[in-house]
Amino acid sequence: MPAQPSPDHAYHPPAGPERFADVDRPTLVVDRSRAERNIARMAAKAAASGVRFRPHFKTHNRVEVGEWFRAAGTSAITVSSVEHALRFADAGWDDITIAFPLVTRALPSIRSLASRIRLGVLLDSPEAAAALTGVGAPLDVWVDVDAGYGRSGAAWDDAARLAAVGAELGRLPRHRLRGVLTHSGQTYHAPSRAAIEGIWAETASRLAAARDVLSGATGRSGLEISVGDTPGCSVVPRFEGVDEVRPGNFVFYDLQQLAVGSCTEEEIALAVACPIVGVYPERGEAVVHGGSVQLSRDTAPGPDGGQNLGRLAVVDADGWRLLPVDAGFVRGVSQEHGVLRCSPDVLARLRVGDLAFIIPAHACLPANLIRDLLVV
Amino acid sequence: MPAQPSPDHAYHPPAGPERFADVDRPTLVVDRSRAERNIARMAAKAAASGVRFRPHFKTHNRVEVGEWFRAAGTSAITVSSVEHALRFADAGWDDITIAFPLVTRALPSIRSLASRIRLGVLLDSPEAAAALTGVGAPLDVWVDVDAGYGRSGAAWDDAARLAAVGAELGRLPRHRLRGVLTHSGQTYHAPSRAAIEGIWAETASRLAAARDVLSGATGRSGLEISVGDTPGCSVVPRFEGVDEVRPGNFVFYDLQQLAVGSCTEEEIALAVACPIVGVYPERGEAVVHGGSVQLSRDTAPGPDGGQNLGRLAVVDADGWRLLPVDAGFVRGVSQEHGVLRCSPDVLARLRVGDLAFIIPAHACLPANLIRDLLVV
Repeated sequence: MPAQPSPDHAYHPPAGPERFADVDRPTLVVDRSRAERNIARMAAKAAASGVRFRPHFKTHNRVEVGEWFRAAGTSAITVSSVEHALRFADAGWDDITIAFPLVTRALPSIRSLASRIRLGVLLDSPEAAAALTGVGAPLDVWVDVDAGYGRSGAAWDDAARLAAVGAELGRLPRHRLRGVLTHSGQTYHAPSRAAIEGIWAETASRLAAARDVLSGATGRSGLEISVGDTPGCSVVPRFEGVDEVRPGNFVFYDLQQLAVGSCTEEEIALAVACPIVGVYPERGEAVVHGGSVQLSRDTAPGPDGGQNLGRLAVVDADGWRLLPVDAGFVRGVSQEHGVLRCSPDVLARLRVGDLAFIIPAHACLPANLIRDLLVV
Repeated sequence: MPAQPSPDHAYHPPAGPERFADVDRPTLVVDRSRAERNIARMAAKAAASGVRFRPHFKTHNRVEVGEWFRAAGTSAITVSSVEHALRFADAGWDDITIAFPLVTRALPSIRSLASRIRLGVLLDSPEAAAALTGVGAPLDVWVDVDAGYGRSGAAWDDAARLAAVGAELGRLPRHRLRGVLTHSGQTYHAPSRAAIEGIWAETASRLAAARDVLSGATGRSGLEISVGDTPGCSVVPRFEGVDEVRPGNFVFYDLQQLAVGSCTEEEIALAVACPIVGVYPERGEAVVHGGSVQLSRDTAPGPDGGQNLGRLAVVDADGWRLLPVDAGFVRGVSQEHGVLRCSPDVLARLRVGDLAFIIPAHACLPANLIRDLLVV
C-alpha cells in the first residue's frame, strides 16, 4: 500500500463510487452475490444431509433478503420474536418457528398468527406449556433444551423437568409436539474447528437423550432434533444426528465467525459504510459516524490479544477486501462515534467526507440496528 | 423479603398492575415525576450559574419527553445527528446544535435545515470548515476541542490546528463562530466525585486556552465555552468557567451514573420492563425477553468486582426501588435474551409471564433502541 495519499485511493470503489454518493449516515452494504453463495452452500449441505433447512431470519430481518432464500428453495424459517413472525407472515412465509422461549404475555398475537400460518413455538416449563391451553389453532411445539450453553432451556439431563413438560403437553392434544430444539452458542467461543465439531457431536447426543425422555413421557414417537448455531453448521461436513438446522448468521458472516473458522474473508457479505468525520494523525486515529447504536459493542479478537469492534476494508470492483487488523480497526465506540485506530499509511489516505467500510465484529446487531441498506 | 412466593408479590405494582397488562415485549418505563424533577434541578442550576442550558436530547430522543423540557423553560437543545435535528425541528424546536463532528456528506440536509431554524454545527479541521463554503443560510459554528477524552476534536493544546481552523472560518463571514465545545466523557470513569470536579476545572481551563487561540486567530471576541457531560454537570455545585451546558443523560440517569456519584437511586427515572420467559432454580437464574438489541451491552460495576448490564427493581405505589445488586442483576445478553442472576429468595418469586423491571447500566441505548414507551 503506498504511503502517499492518492486522489483516487481505494476507500472509494473505483468501479462505481456513484453507488455510494448518497450515503450520508451509517449504512449497511450487503454483497448480494456473496450472500446468495452462502445461502446456496448451506441449503445444499442440508439437502445432502437429508435434514430440513429452516434458516434463522433474525440476522438480516429484512423481507428483501428473505426473498433471496425463497429463490434458493427455502420454505420454512426461524425468527426470534412474535413481532418478526408477523412481519414475515405478512411477506408470505407460512411455516415459521419462533425460536425464543414462549412469551406468554404475547399469547393474543400468537393465537391470531397461528390461525393464519403454521407456527412453531418453544418452551421449557410446565407453566409455559399450560399457558397454551387457550390457544385454539394448532401450534407446533418444540421443547427448548440446554445442551451446555447455559442460556435458556431445560437442562438436557434434567429428566424430571423434561417429563413434567411432556406430561403437561400430553394434556394438549390439539398442539403438535415436534421435538427438542437448542442453540449451542458456546461454539462462538470454541478454540478450534475441531472443538466446534466436538460440540456438534455432544449436542446431538445430549438432544437425543432429552428427546428419548420426552418420548417416554408423552408416548409420542417421531420427535425431531433441531439445532442452530452458525459455527457448527458451517464447520461440520454433514449434519449428522439431527433433523433440522436453523443457522442465521451465515448469510452475512462477520469477524467473530472468521475468528472461529466458520468462514473465509471472501464469504463475509456485510459491511457498514460510515462517514469519516475526523482524522487525528498525532493519535493515529480517525473518527467515523458509526457508534454503539449502529455497530453495537460486540467484539472480535483484535491485535496483541486485545479486542476490536470492527475492521477496515477497502472496496474495489470485486467487492471489498479486509485489511490486516493492524491497518485499521475500531478500538471503541460511544453512542454515535466510532474510533478507528489505523496504521500511518492507511490514516494518510483517509479524508473527512470519505466513507470507511467497516466489517463488524458480529453482523446480527448492525443488521438490525441500521435501517439503511445498500445491496451491491 | 419473604422467602416464600406470594401471589401478589412485588414484581407487579400493587397500585396498578393493569398499567402493565398489555406489555408483551421489552418496554421502556419512564417515571415522569422523577424525570421532571431531574430537568427542573439541572435547569435551575444553569440559571443560578448564569449559563445557557442546552440539554442533549440524544438520551431520550422523543418528542414527548422534549415537551417536558419545554414546559420547564428550555428553548435551545442539542442533538447528535442531522436526522434527529430534523425530527425536533419538525416538533417546533428552532435553536438546535448538532453536537457531532460535521458529516460533510450530509450538507444538503444541513443546508435545508439551516434555512428553517437556528442551527449549530461542530467541526475540528480546516477541511470541514471549508466544506461550509456552499451553505447559504448562516450557521452557528462551534469548534470541537478534545480536552482530554481522546474521542473527537482538535487537541486543546494543538494551537496550529486551532489556528488553521480559525483561519478557514475567517473566510466564511456568513457563518457565526460561536466558540469551543467539548464532551468530557472521561468523567464516566472517574473514581470519585472529587475527581469529577477536578476534570470539570481542568476542562474549563483547557477550553479557555483553546478559545483564546481561536480568538487570536480570527480576531473575534466573545467566543463561548460549551461543555456537556452528565457526571460533571450533576456533581459540580455551580457551572463555573463555562457559558453553556449540554448534559443529556441526567433526564433519566442509570447505574453508571449511580456508580460515579452523579445521582441517587431515587433519581433514576427509566427502567425496562422485560417479560420473564424462563426460571432456572438449579442455576439461580432467570431469562427475560430483553437482550443486546434492547438493553445494549453497556455495563456498570457488578458484584465481586465484576460487571452487570442491569439490575432488578421492584415496583410499588411510589415508583420503583432498586434491589441490592446481588439480589438480581443481568449477567449477560444475547440478541434477544437477557440472563438474570438472582438470589434464591428473589428467584423463588419470579414467574414465567411476569415482568422484570430492569434498571439499565446506561440509559441512552435502551432509550434509543426500544420503541415502546410507558410513562408512569
